[in-house]
Amino acid sequence: MSAAKQVYIAVIGAGGVGKCFLSQLQALAARKPSPKLNLAYIATSRKALFNDDYSALDIGSAVDSLAGSSKSPLALSQVVDYLAAAPAKAVLVDNTSSQDVAELYPLALSRGISIVTPNKKAFSGSYKLWQDIFSAAASSGAKVYHESSVGAGLPVISTLKDLVETGDKVTKVEGVFSGTMSFLFNSFAPTEGQGGKWSAEVKNAKALGYTEPDPRDDLNGLDVARKLTILARLAGLPVESPTSFPVQSLIPKELESVASGDEFLEKLPAFDQQLEDIKAEAEKEGKVVRFVGSIDVATKSVKVGLEKFDRSHPIAALKGSDNIISFYTERYGSNPLIIQGAGAGGEVTAMGVTGDLIKVVSQIA
Amino acid sequence: MSAAKQVYIAVIGAGGVGKCFLSQLQALAARKPSPKLNLAYIATSRKALFNDDYSALDIGSAVDSLAGSSKSPLALSQVVDYLAAAPAKAVLVDNTSSQDVAELYPLALSRGISIVTPNKKAFSGSYKLWQDIFSAAASSGAKVYHESSVGAGLPVISTLKDLVETGDKVTKVEGVFSGTMSFLFNSFAPTEGQGGKWSAEVKNAKALGYTEPDPRDDLNGLDVARKLTILARLAGLPVESPTSFPVQSLIPKELESVASGDEFLEKLPAFDQQLEDIKAEAEKEGKVVRFVGSIDVATKSVKVGLEKFDRSHPIAALKGSDNIISFYTERYGSNPLIIQGAGAGGEVTAMGVTGDLIKVVSQIA
Repeated sequence: MSAAKQVYIAVIGAGGVGKCFLSQLQALAARKPSPKLNLAYIATSRKALFNDDYSALDIGSAVDSLAGSSKSPLALSQVVDYLAAAPAKAVLVDNTSSQDVAELYPLALSRGISIVTPNKKAFSGSYKLWQDIFSAAASSGAKVYHESSVGAGLPVISTLKDLVETGDKVTKVEGVFSGTMSFLFNSFAPTEGQGGKWSAEVKNAKALGYTEPDPRDDLNGLDVARKLTILARLAGLPVESPTSFPVQSLIPKELESVASGDEFLEKLPAFDQQLEDIKAEAEKEGKVVRFVGSIDVATKSVKVGLEKFDRSHPIAALKGSDNIISFYTERYGSNPLIIQGAGAGGEVTAMGVTGDLIKVVSQIA
Repeated sequence: MSAAKQVYIAVIGAGGVGKCFLSQLQALAARKPSPKLNLAYIATSRKALFNDDYSALDIGSAVDSLAGSSKSPLALSQVVDYLAAAPAKAVLVDNTSSQDVAELYPLALSRGISIVTPNKKAFSGSYKLWQDIFSAAASSGAKVYHESSVGAGLPVISTLKDLVETGDKVTKVEGVFSGTMSFLFNSFAPTEGQGGKWSAEVKNAKALGYTEPDPRDDLNGLDVARKLTILARLAGLPVESPTSFPVQSLIPKELESVASGDEFLEKLPAFDQQLEDIKAEAEKEGKVVRFVGSIDVATKSVKVGLEKFDRSHPIAALKGSDNIISFYTERYGSNPLIIQGAGAGGEVTAMGVTGDLIKVVSQIA
């Protein structure tokens, strides 16, 4: 290997995940002298930092320098032009959750720029965008990795891809795919003892930072539906969109259109009985209720919502805000291959991104 | 990517795992037209099949043709010469458990031949061999992948490597690493109900094919010690050998040197009380006993043997012959990243090998 090998990296997004990623990138770049990882571009939606001659930015001070930068971000198509003209192979790291950036992937890939991202939007939007992304990658040879789009740094995507690529037949995927939902139901319907009232648990989860600013963005089930869409497509089902299969929303109809998350939380106690009834029904069968997603490959059925589980079931026994994903396959038989652990958080999400970057760089440099 | 890209593959070993691998390789080679995967050499300890001009062998009929072949295998150093002179990059797939083949890796790697293998010997033998292997790979750029050396096709090695390479600090690794031990203790000390007598469970496990021909080869704990050695080294501990830390053998001293596995099984019932006492002691604390391995990175302590676990602990709740591996790290905090599932069997072991081959080919071709 030539010591002169270089890879140019552009990073879009410098929020929670973005900052963790940059700190992991700094350590990685210091440790692995070859190929040399050059940070060539970094931007938020309002500011950017880059040099026209592609000279490398200092990774350690990038976030601070960005805050003081007077440069506006390049238009997305210009970012592609800039990277495509770099003196060596380039990787675009998209640490946003932006649909606009996601729409850019086919163009970037077709021009030889590899993509690494935790952004779910590109892989869980229209099936056409999915096809455009992977056909652009296939014809240019550029890579696209998105481990952290499901289960953060847990090896979920890579494991499913390995199963499929080595010729195993995945028959079913089932699990808890949302840290927020995991935390809520582990508290509301614990395997031992009594949980609190539903609205109180939601309020508590928000106070602890486990929900989005408006908890309805977790309770509508769409985040889980997006993750299921990605896994179903990797398992071979051409799922049209995350709204093309049944997704149970935990937002009471009457509160769907209240103006704010705060108003929602204020009015939620009036609807506690709905989930209390579901919990009581499960308890009568000696079970607990959990918010899960499942993919049945043979019947092509994907669904997201509440299900009852025996208290000894691994899904019931989950702790804290952990995710659990079970892969049932022909080779693994009746006992699934299970992956479990934290499925959210800046450091573990960034870890999935950094791990992907390492894999991409090992293939393109 | 050029359609003309080729990779040459040599396979040593055509037993249970080897046969499953060849069938997976056949499907893979048919599905992925580029790079073209050419089977150039296949051998057992007694026979071989190859063409001097490197023309590809038919993968589907290779096992049958090998049985009818009149060629003797090349000496191992000649296999290296043969592959090093191939018209394109080459991968040696070692599907044996041979120490001799393992000793060959540094030479092969130094000559640019990548290695893919489930063979534990190379990575769990002397620390010098480990160092020779990875320094040969680092200087030539050839790859060495061995996912199936721990937990068969479960993503154990790749996950640990990702944790370490992205800069996480692994503090502890703990788990059940032997399908045989898992099956024995899940039957002998189940979380619900009573298990059978120890000697009867060992006899039953052997009858069902869960043990080696001589069950002492499982009960001595060396197989688990080898796996722990590999994981400890990947986590950064320079473990000298699988006998350089405490390993509890479940073979009664008096039966260590009886002549055969059959004689061992015949005499084992006289020693049932030993394990019965351990089981009763655990039960008094409301626990069950399991055969586990653990690595504590901070104290540099590695050990293998019996431990007691609460009935609700994931290690206690394991089913059948499943493995479970928990990674405790700085980023994952108090709840570990857990991988669980079948850790033995031809198809899943071969799957780890095939998955590794795909990763190696994507980097070298």
